[in-house]
Amino acid sequence: MSASRFPLAPGSTIGIVGGGQLGRMLAMAAARLGFRVAVLAREAGSPAGQVSAVELVGDYGDPDAVARLAALSDVLTFEFENVSAAALAAAEGSGAPIAPPDRALAVAQDRVDEKGFLNLHGLATTAFAPIDTAADIAPGLERLGAPALLKTRREGYDGKGQAWVKAPGEAEAVFAAIGARPSILEAKVEFVRELSVIAARGWTGEIAAYPVGENRHEHGVLRTTTAPADITPAARQEALRIAAALLRALDYVGVVGVELFELADGRLLVNEFAPRVHNTGHWTLDGCQVDQFEQHIRAVAGWPLGPTEPLARVQMTNLLGLDAGAWASLAADPGARLWLYGKSDPAPGRKMGHVNRLSPL
Amino acid sequence: MSASRFPLAPGSTIGIVGGGQLGRMLAMAAARLGFRVAVLAREAGSPAGQVSAVELVGDYGDPDAVARLAALSDVLTFEFENVSAAALAAAEGSGAPIAPPDRALAVAQDRVDEKGFLNLHGLATTAFAPIDTAADIAPGLERLGAPALLKTRREGYDGKGQAWVKAPGEAEAVFAAIGARPSILEAKVEFVRELSVIAARGWTGEIAAYPVGENRHEHGVLRTTTAPADITPAARQEALRIAAALLRALDYVGVVGVELFELADGRLLVNEFAPRVHNTGHWTLDGCQVDQFEQHIRAVAGWPLGPTEPLARVQMTNLLGLDAGAWASLAADPGARLWLYGKSDPAPGRKMGHVNRLSPL
Repeated sequence: MSASRFPLAPGSTIGIVGGGQLGRMLAMAAARLGFRVAVLAREAGSPAGQVSAVELVGDYGDPDAVARLAALSDVLTFEFENVSAAALAAAEGSGAPIAPPDRALAVAQDRVDEKGFLNLHGLATTAFAPIDTAADIAPGLERLGAPALLKTRREGYDGKGQAWVKAPGEAEAVFAAIGARPSILEAKVEFVRELSVIAARGWTGEIAAYPVGENRHEHGVLRTTTAPADITPAARQEALRIAAALLRALDYVGVVGVELFELADGRLLVNEFAPRVHNTGHWTLDGCQVDQFEQHIRAVAGWPLGPTEPLARVQMTNLLGLDAGAWASLAADPGARLWLYGKSDPAPGRKMGHVNRLSPL
Repeated sequence: MSASRFPLAPGSTIGIVGGGQLGRMLAMAAARLGFRVAVLAREAGSPAGQVSAVELVGDYGDPDAVARLAALSDVLTFEFENVSAAALAAAEGSGAPIAPPDRALAVAQDRVDEKGFLNLHGLATTAFAPIDTAADIAPGLERLGAPALLKTRREGYDGKGQAWVKAPGEAEAVFAAIGARPSILEAKVEFVRELSVIAARGWTGEIAAYPVGENRHEHGVLRTTTAPADITPAARQEALRIAAALLRALDYVGVVGVELFELADGRLLVNEFAPRVHNTGHWTLDGCQVDQFEQHIRAVAGWPLGPTEPLARVQMTNLLGLDAGAWASLAADPGARLWLYGKSDPAPGRKMGHVNRLSPL
């Protein structure tokens, strides 16, 4: 951390790679603090571009486009983790500091590397086996037990690019079904609940974590997060310990989202982490004085992290696809705090907005 | 209200005349609800333009510029009241609905018309006399008592364009000092406190009001608002009655700010009203689920008004000029919720941002 550069003064420009709703809410948080925002979006008029001073249009993997964004920016950040190595190299060469660090992005991009990194730092995950060919599946199944979950190592999200393998005889077919790509086989986790922790780390090493949220998925896509989750103090401590250990191990700067499985015996396994603001942290927009988006901007700009205490219990519900058509009734519901992302095409399952419902703690 | 036009669907464009901090916070609120925003600003890179999809540059009084904005907009609104008649006519001719209505803007632009309108609708103000020439001042002083406050009828804000007249012999000099323009002479008000009410009315006539705030000015400029003000239930009722009566009398749509003088005997006089979101309502940004900016967007877009209950007691402090240089220490104060407006020139007295400090109700 260059002492002269941080904290960035108001009026500095935050560069955001990605034009989606996470970039949009980051841009709005940056504006609150007096920053200018420049975004790199795939299409003009993107959700983030609509609320930013500058919108560059280009591919996130195009080194020239990323370099153009970096040239305008006092710090560069990302709203998603699947940034190409070429784009990262362009960002690195720009001279603008980058947060989160490239290592966090690289580790998070590969499920084998991610679990290996976590285990190396004493953070438990489900057992797994790297799968390069269909022939690797049978020995993997034998070791991990059947059924086991086959996922592509890279990309794939919201339940895409993954399938169950119930028996060795299915190996070829399932491997083909997910694209016959380098993969990971994961032992089935008999979890009680899915939890997540949203935490942040600053350039000086300062760490702050929000209360743990409990997540419910439908068809592989997040449907609701409820926070603070109704968990034991011990589970809460353990979740925060995991998040802090991960942030330190990655020498991380910014907000991270860590997804956890809670087992029947109380243990927590890390499912995965996202090196960015996270859908399971949207409850903080109405549930905390400083939400995850402002926290990320504070972190990457070298500002002190803000308070993370909850003001209320919040249930966040994603509006997927045509769900957003209910905007008029949601607008009329005094208990519903509505966020819409400025997207015009309500494709099935597409995240169009979310609603936060508050109740007393 | 055209049933087919309202409520405006997400993705519709809100046109805002004015590029300052009020437009900025309106644009951010509109984005939350999924609207696009187009602003007309005097200079490129304005506080509002930085967070809007479209920024037109032009003079607010230029009918062509206003017409260009209206052509892009599904509804047209204003962040300030001193819009020229020519600009209003251009807006009227655009076909896009306009809120607040031109009558409210016209009445608020002229201090004599404003007080006359208020009195006509049974809303008490201080006694006043229209002043066309310096010769009108002596008879005015005789009727109202000395000292009395001479203000220009039009424009002038934050204490500019006004001066005290202590004796008839000063009439010529004071009239000259405020520009020898059509003016108003106001009887001195021996008030205990300055209060304000932020209230909203929708296209359907629905009204919602926030708790009353107590304001403290320094050198004619608002320094702090504390809300909810520590006033009697009767005073609160009276303040809300005044705001509602004014909204109805103006057939108003949008948020209005009504400044009140509280007298020693408990009576409330209207000082003035602003047909727009108001500095004394900035506390709602952190003190209510739906802040005044979202409320204004809801009102002009034909959405149901949101809840106005306070979540906390808030003290809002304006950051004027170099005050904003304290951003680093304010950022480090967990009790301070900071808002900065994206202005680069901290001219003395210029509103650069504000801070909300919350405490339990």
